[in-house]
Amino acid sequence: MTTDNRPMTSAPVATTPLRFKRLLLTGAAGGLGRELRQRLPHYCETLRLSDIADLGSAGPREEVMPARLEDAPAVLQLLEGVDAVVHLGGVSTEQPWEPILQANIVGIYNLYEAARKQGVKRVLFASSNHVTGFYRQDEVIDARDPMRPDGLYGLSKAFGESLSRFYWDRYGIQTVCLRIGSSFPEPRNRRMLATWMSYDDLERLVVAALTAPVVGHSIIFGISDNHTRFYDNTYGAHIGYRPQDSSEPFRAKVEAGEPVLDMNDPANVYQGGPFVRTGPFE
Amino acid sequence: MTTDNRPMTSAPVATTPLRFKRLLLTGAAGGLGRELRQRLPHYCETLRLSDIADLGSAGPREEVMPARLEDAPAVLQLLEGVDAVVHLGGVSTEQPWEPILQANIVGIYNLYEAARKQGVKRVLFASSNHVTGFYRQDEVIDARDPMRPDGLYGLSKAFGESLSRFYWDRYGIQTVCLRIGSSFPEPRNRRMLATWMSYDDLERLVVAALTAPVVGHSIIFGISDNHTRFYDNTYGAHIGYRPQDSSEPFRAKVEAGEPVLDMNDPANVYQGGPFVRTGPFE
Amino acid sequence: MTTDNRPMTSAPVATTPLRFKRLLLTGAAGGLGRELRQRLPHYCETLRLSDIADLGSAGPREEVMPARLEDAPAVLQLLEGVDAVVHLGGVSTEQPWEPILQANIVGIYNLYEAARKQGVKRVLFASSNHVTGFYRQDEVIDARDPMRPDGLYGLSKAFGESLSRFYWDRYGIQTVCLRIGSSFPEPRNRRMLATWMSYDDLERLVVAALTAPVVGHSIIFGISDNHTRFYDNTYGAHIGYRPQDSSEPFRAKVEAGEPVLDMNDPANVYQGGPFVRTGPFE
Amino acid sequence: MTTDNRPMTSAPVATTPLRFKRLLLTGAAGGLGRELRQRLPHYCETLRLSDIADLGSAGPREEVMPARLEDAPAVLQLLEGVDAVVHLGGVSTEQPWEPILQANIVGIYNLYEAARKQGVKRVLFASSNHVTGFYRQDEVIDARDPMRPDGLYGLSKAFGESLSRFYWDRYGIQTVCLRIGSSFPEPRNRRMLATWMSYDDLERLVVAALTAPVVGHSIIFGISDNHTRFYDNTYGAHIGYRPQDSSEPFRAKVEAGEPVLDMNDPANVYQGGPFVRTGPFE
Amino acid sequence: MTTDNRPMTSAPVATTPLRFKRLLLTGAAGGLGRELRQRLPHYCETLRLSDIADLGSAGPREEVMPARLEDAPAVLQLLEGVDAVVHLGGVSTEQPWEPILQANIVGIYNLYEAARKQGVKRVLFASSNHVTGFYRQDEVIDARDPMRPDGLYGLSKAFGESLSRFYWDRYGIQTVCLRIGSSFPEPRNRRMLATWMSYDDLERLVVAALTAPVVGHSIIFGISDNHTRFYDNTYGAHIGYRPQDSSEPFRAKVEAGEPVLDMNDPANVYQGGPFVRTGPFE
Amino acid sequence: MTTDNRPMTSAPVATTPLRFKRLLLTGAAGGLGRELRQRLPHYCETLRLSDIADLGSAGPREEVMPARLEDAPAVLQLLEGVDAVVHLGGVSTEQPWEPILQANIVGIYNLYEAARKQGVKRVLFASSNHVTGFYRQDEVIDARDPMRPDGLYGLSKAFGESLSRFYWDRYGIQTVCLRIGSSFPEPRNRRMLATWMSYDDLERLVVAALTAPVVGHSIIFGISDNHTRFYDNTYGAHIGYRPQDSSEPFRAKVEAGEPVLDMNDPANVYQGGPFVRTGPFE
Repeated sequence: MTTDNRPMTSAPVATTPLRFKRLLLTGAAGGLGRELRQRLPHYCETLRLSDIADLGSAGPREEVMPARLEDAPAVLQLLEGVDAVVHLGGVSTEQPWEPILQANIVGIYNLYEAARKQGVKRVLFASSNHVTGFYRQDEVIDARDPMRPDGLYGLSKAFGESLSRFYWDRYGIQTVCLRIGSSFPEPRNRRMLATWMSYDDLERLVVAALTAPVVGHSIIFGISDNHTRFYDNTYGAHIGYRPQDSSEPFRAKVEAGEPVLDMNDPANVYQGGPFVRTGPFE
Repeated sequence: MTTDNRPMTSAPVATTPLRFKRLLLTGAAGGLGRELRQRLPHYCETLRLSDIADLGSAGPREEVMPARLEDAPAVLQLLEGVDAVVHLGGVSTEQPWEPILQANIVGIYNLYEAARKQGVKRVLFASSNHVTGFYRQDEVIDARDPMRPDGLYGLSKAFGESLSRFYWDRYGIQTVCLRIGSSFPEPRNRRMLATWMSYDDLERLVVAALTAPVVGHSIIFGISDNHTRFYDNTYGAHIGYRPQDSSEPFRAKVEAGEPVLDMNDPANVYQGGPFVRTGPFE
Repeated sequence: MTTDNRPMTSAPVATTPLRFKRLLLTGAAGGLGRELRQRLPHYCETLRLSDIADLGSAGPREEVMPARLEDAPAVLQLLEGVDAVVHLGGVSTEQPWEPILQANIVGIYNLYEAARKQGVKRVLFASSNHVTGFYRQDEVIDARDPMRPDGLYGLSKAFGESLSRFYWDRYGIQTVCLRIGSSFPEPRNRRMLATWMSYDDLERLVVAALTAPVVGHSIIFGISDNHTRFYDNTYGAHIGYRPQDSSEPFRAKVEAGEPVLDMNDPANVYQGGPFVRTGPFE
Repeated sequence: MTTDNRPMTSAPVATTPLRFKRLLLTGAAGGLGRELRQRLPHYCETLRLSDIADLGSAGPREEVMPARLEDAPAVLQLLEGVDAVVHLGGVSTEQPWEPILQANIVGIYNLYEAARKQGVKRVLFASSNHVTGFYRQDEVIDARDPMRPDGLYGLSKAFGESLSRFYWDRYGIQTVCLRIGSSFPEPRNRRMLATWMSYDDLERLVVAALTAPVVGHSIIFGISDNHTRFYDNTYGAHIGYRPQDSSEPFRAKVEAGEPVLDMNDPANVYQGGPFVRTGPFE
Repeated sequence: MTTDNRPMTSAPVATTPLRFKRLLLTGAAGGLGRELRQRLPHYCETLRLSDIADLGSAGPREEVMPARLEDAPAVLQLLEGVDAVVHLGGVSTEQPWEPILQANIVGIYNLYEAARKQGVKRVLFASSNHVTGFYRQDEVIDARDPMRPDGLYGLSKAFGESLSRFYWDRYGIQTVCLRIGSSFPEPRNRRMLATWMSYDDLERLVVAALTAPVVGHSIIFGISDNHTRFYDNTYGAHIGYRPQDSSEPFRAKVEAGEPVLDMNDPANVYQGGPFVRTGPFE
Repeated sequence: MTTDNRPMTSAPVATTPLRFKRLLLTGAAGGLGRELRQRLPHYCETLRLSDIADLGSAGPREEVMPARLEDAPAVLQLLEGVDAVVHLGGVSTEQPWEPILQANIVGIYNLYEAARKQGVKRVLFASSNHVTGFYRQDEVIDARDPMRPDGLYGLSKAFGESLSRFYWDRYGIQTVCLRIGSSFPEPRNRRMLATWMSYDDLERLVVAALTAPVVGHSIIFGISDNHTRFYDNTYGAHIGYRPQDSSEPFRAKVEAGEPVLDMNDPANVYQGGPFVRTGPFE
C-alpha cells in the first residue's frame, strides 16, 4: 500500500549526492554522536559538529560549532553551507517540560527554518521508539500506525515527525525519521532484545538514509536484525537499510541477568519500557 | 478495524455525567466561542468562560475567568472545580511561530497538566482540518490516516492531538479531537461546500462528544452532512454525531460567486485551502 | 475490500426463492421468536415452529414441532421438508457451560448436519453482539474484525459462526450470521442507544437475509439506524437491510433514567455490556 | 486511507469551470446518450454530439459531429475547442474482439491523445460495473479493489481506466471513471435492484463529476441509493454525488417477475450478471 | 497495524519466568509430544506429562499424570502447581464429531477453567493450519484473516482460539496459538514444502512462545523457513521465533515422488490438503 | 489478507507437472529470451522457441517456430501441443502506439485465445515494473496496489494483467504475472540497485512460477534480494521464489558511475525511471 509522498512545491529539490561537502552532525557529544563522529568522515569532506556539551578540539576535516538549538540565529548560522544534517541534538531522555520544549520543540522548528532558509534539502531526524512507546510489546507496528508517545520526550519527537512532514509537503525538504530503538554496545535487558541496534547497524542506517536517492518523508525503525521485534519496516524498504547484527548472541547473558519480569510493571509490558512510567509529575 | 484504546492506568476514570456541574469553555470570545456560549448553558449548571479577549460580564450561571493559556498557574486555577472542558482557546489562524508556540503548544500542555492535577477527566479539543490539510481534495481520508499539517497552526493542532493521546494512554483523561472544518453562518467558497459545518451541527457535535459514555481518545471530523466530502467519519460512529444540515442549499450561491477556480493555485487543490500557501516566512 | 466467498463444491446450490414453502423458526417461544412468529407467515406457506418451551397450539399455516437441539435425530426430523431456517433456538443469555454446550454447540452442529442431510440450503443464524463484546465502546468494528467473545454465550455464537463458515465452504449451505444487538420494544439503557434494534427492523433484517439472492457466508450487525453505533455494516450491503427505526427518539428517556455511568464498571466500557462481567465462576 | 493522486507534470492543469463553453458528448445516440443529450444543455453553451449512429439534426446550441472513435484524425478534430468530454461512445455490450478492439481500445487511445493535443483537461469516462463483474454478489467492493473484468467489454473498460490513470499521472488530464451499473427507466431483474441507476441520478452523477473542483483520477460506482448494493463509494465522496432515487419502490414488481433464481447459473451469482457467461467463443 | 491486546482485569498477570518450575505437556505420547518430551526438560525443573495413551515410566525430573481432557476434575488436578502449559493434547486428526467434541471442545474448556482456578498464566495452545485450511494455496494469509476451518478438527481448533482469546480478555491468561503446519521428520508431499516444520524449529517455536515476556493472545503459524509459504508471520514478530530449517533441501525428493498433481482434487488446491475432503459424512 | 482466487468454471484445470513435455518460450531471441533458451531445457522435453527475430537453427530438443503475435492463426498453431507458455514476446520498450497495440494488446489476446482453444492451462506472462512505474521511489508497493502504468508499454502490460485475470476467472487458465524489474548482467544505475534481477534469479523465478502447484492468477515482482527495494512480495510467497543474488556487490561501482542525481528529472524520482519521460509525443 502506498501513501502520497510528493511536495507541493515544484521548485528544484536539488541533487542527491553520495558524498557530502559539508555534513552537519548535531548532538555530536552524546552517546550516538561520538560514535557517528568517528564514522561519518568517510562520507563527507567536512564534518561539522555541534552540541552544547564539550566537543574537544576539531580533528582533521572537522569543524566544531557549538550551538543551542533554541537559539534561532545560532542555528541559522549552523546550517550555512551544509549539504545535509544528521540531527541527534536535543534532549534524549524523559525530562521536565521546559528543557524538552526548548531543545526539542523550539529546537526542531529552528532547525527546519534554518534548513529552509539555507537551502538544505535533506535531514536525518533522530526520532525515537518512544513516539510509539504506548503500544504493547505483543503488538507489531509499522510506520503508518498512529503515533502513541509515551512521555514528553516521545511527544517532542512526535512533534518533530509532524513538523518534518510539513517541511516536505510544503518546501520539499526531504527527511528520514529514524525511530531509534536502543543503540548501545550491547542489549541491557530483555526489552532491548527487541529494540537493540548495534553501532555498526546505526552507521549502516545513517548512510543508507543519507544516500538513498528519493526519501521524501520516510519513517524507519532503527533496530538490528533481532529475532524478537515489535516493528515491521516494510514501508522503509526503499531506504536500503539491511542490518547485519542481532541481539540474539546476547540473549543468554541478558536473560540470565533478568530471569523474571514483573508483568504488573508497565515498563515490562509497553514497547516504551521504563519511559512509560515517567511523564510529568509534580 | 479497531485500534487499541485503553489507558495504562487502572485508576478510576470517574463517571460520565450527562449534565455538568461546571463546564469550562475556553476561547469563549471567538467566533465559535460566542456561539457555544449561548448554547452550552443547557448542558451544565455553571458555564465557566475564558479568553484573553473581552468576554463582557457574566450572565446567569456564567463565570468569566480570563486566562492566558501560556500562564500555567492561571490555567491550573481555571480548571479547578471543572467537570469537563470545551477547549477552543488559542490561536485559530495561521500566524508566526511565537504566538502559536505560546498559545497552542505551551498552552495545550498547560491545559492537560491542569486537567491531570485537577482530576478533570474529559476534554473536547478543538483540533482542525488543517491537521490533514496537505491531502488533496480528491482524496478521502479517515481518522487513522497519518497527519499532514498544512502550516504552523495545523502543526500545533497535530501536537495537541498527540499530547491528548498521551494523556489518555497514561492518565486516563478522555479526549475527543474535533477536527473542525469551516464553521460559519454559511459556506463562503467552493472548498467549504465540503468542509462547512453549521452552528447547529457544531452544537450537536459538541453535545455528542461531551455525553458519549466512552470516548477514550477519539478523532472526528466536524462537518455537516454535505454532499461533497473529503472526510470519512466511520471511526467516530460511537460518538453519535449525526449532522442535520448541509452545504447543498448554498451550492448555487457559492458557485455563482466563484465560477472558475485556478487549479494552479494550491489553495484550490489541497484540503487545507489557503492555509497551505502560508507557512513560515521571513 | 473483498474476501473469498465460494464453496468448494460445484454441486448445485439450489435455487433462491422469495417465498418459502416451509420455513423453520427455532426458538419460536422466546422473545424474538414470538415476534417473528407473527411476522414470518407473510413470507411462507407453512411456518414450522420449534422450541423446548410451550408454543401453544398451531395457528393456520403453522406447524408446531418441539425439539431439543442436542437431540440429533429430532433435529434431523425437524429440518425435513424445510426450505430455509431462521435459527433463534438455544441459550440466549450467559449461562453455565453445560447448557450452553448442549444447546448452542452440540445444537448448532446438529442443526447444520441436519441441513446437510436434508438438503436445506439457507440458514439465518442468530449470532450475537457478544461474539465481539470485548471490544470497547469507543471502537468501531466491522464484520472482518477478529471475534472477541465476552463469555461462554458469546463463545458459543463464535463457534456457530465458524461452523457455518465451514458448512458454506465445504457443502455450499448459505448462512447469514445476524449479530443481533438488543432487540426489545425500546432501548433500556445507554448502551442500547447503540445496540438497539426495533422489532420492525428485526423483521426487515430477517426478510432481507432470507431473500437476498446470494449471501454465501455473510455477517451483519443487527441494529436500527441509531445515531450512536459501534458497528460498521459496510460488508453486509449486499443483503439489502436498511433499518427504518432509530434509538434516538428514546434518548431523553434513557438518559434521564441513567444520568451517570460508573466508568470503572466494565459493563459500561465494553460493547458487550453486563455480559463481560459474568463468565464462568465457581 | 489515501492514495497518491498528483500528476508528474507541474504544467498548468487549467481552470475548472462550472459551466462549459463547449461540452462534447460521445455515444450521444445510445440509450444513455439520448438521456444526457436532453439534460446536458443546462450546463454548457454548446453541446457537441457525436456517434456513429444517426443523431438527427442539431437542436439549438447543439453541434452534431459524427466520428468513428478508431479514426484518430476525426477524433482529434472532434475534441477541438472542447472544454470537457462526457465519453459514452464505443461498444457498450459484450461483443467479439474486433469491434471492441477498434471502438473501445483504439478508440479510447485516440480520445486521450486528442485531449492531450487539444488541451482538454477533463474527461468523464463511462466505465462499467463489468470492470469488476467477476466479484460475487455477496462481496462488497470499493474503488481500490483489483479489477476483475467479466468479458472483453469489461476488459476494454479496464484498459480505459488504466489509460486514463496514465494520462492523469503523466499529462494532468483529469478523469472520473463512472462505473455505471444498470441505467434504465427501471430495474429489470433482481440483480438490478443492486446495480440500478435512474436517469435523474445519472444526470446528478455526471454534473457532479463535471463540476467537482479536483478529481485527479477518480473512480465512482454509478448506482442509485439502492438498499441492496455491491459497491461502497467511500473513496468517491469528494465528487459530491448523492443519489436521490432508489430501486426499492420497484422491488415488489421485480421480485414478482423473477421469483426464483437458479443459483447454478453464474449470471445469478456474479456481480456482472449475464455478461460473465459470454466471453469469446468459437 | 495493531490490535487491542489488553485484558479487562487489572489483577496481577504474574511474572514471566524463563525457566519453569513445573511445565505441563499434554498429548505427550503423540508424535510431537514425544519430541518435546525429550527437549522441554532443558527449560524446566519438572516436566509433567499427560496423555491418554501410555507414557511409559517417568524419567528423571518427569511426572507422569494421565488424564482425559473431558474429565474436568482430572484436568483441574493436572494443572495444580503448574507454571505453564504446552497443550498438544486432544484429537489431532479429522475424526467424527463425538471424540472431537469431548477431547477438543469440552477438553479445551476444562483446560482453561483449570488454568483460571489454579492461577496458571501462560498456555501454548497447539492450534493448527486447519483453522484456515479452506484458503486456497495461491492465497497468502496472516494471523488477522478470518478463520476458515476445513473440517471438524479445524473447527475445534478455531473454538480453542476463540476460547483462549476470551480467557485473555477476561482473566489475563496469556496464550500463544501455534498454528502448526506439518511437523514430521521431513516433508512428505508437495503441500508440505509450504507447511513443513522441522522438530528443531518446533522446539525453537515452543521455547520462544514460552519465554517471550509479553504475548497476550497471539497467533503464529508454525512452519520452517520454507521458500514456498502460504503464511505471513508479520504479526508474530514479537514472539521471537526465527526458524533455522527449510523444506528446500527435500524438494527434489518430494517432487520426484509426486511429479504430477491432479488439480481437480481439492486436496491439492486448498491449504488444508486432504483434510478438506473429509468432514462429516453419513 | 486474502483475495478471491477461484475460476468460475468447474471444468478440469488439468494437472500441474514439474517437467513439461513441450514448453513454449516466446520472445526467445530477446535479451531474456536468449538466457532462458539456455536454461529452460532442463525443465522440459521439448522447448519450442518463437520470435519475429532470427532464432538461428534449432538445437537438440528445440523447436523453432517463428510467429507474429498479431497473427491469430499463427499463434493458435504455436500453442498446439504445448503444456505451458513462458511469454516474453512482444514489444519490451516504450514505443509508439501501433507496434505496442499489435504485439502487446492484439498479441496477448491472441495468445490467451490460443491457450483457451488448445487447452493450455498455465502461462507465465512477462509483465513489467512499468505497470506501476508512476509510483515514486519512496513508496513501497505490493501486488494489490492499483496499477499506475508509466507509458504505452506499461499500459499494454497492465492490459495483459487484466486480460489474464479474466482468462483465469472465466476459463481457469492459470497465470503468473512476472513484473520483471531490470534483468541484465549487472545493475547499470542507481535505480537498478532496487530493480535489478540477476539471470540466475530470473531462472529461479521462472522455474518456481512454472512448477508451483497452485497459482491461479498471481502477481510477483521480479527482483533479486536487493537491499534497496520498492516492492513487497508478501502476496507472492506461495510461488516459492527465493532470490539468491543481490545488487549490493555492485553498489560501489554503480554509485561511482552516477554520484549525483538530478532530483528535478522525473526519471530519478519515479519507480519507472526514464520510461516516465517518454509516452506518446507527436
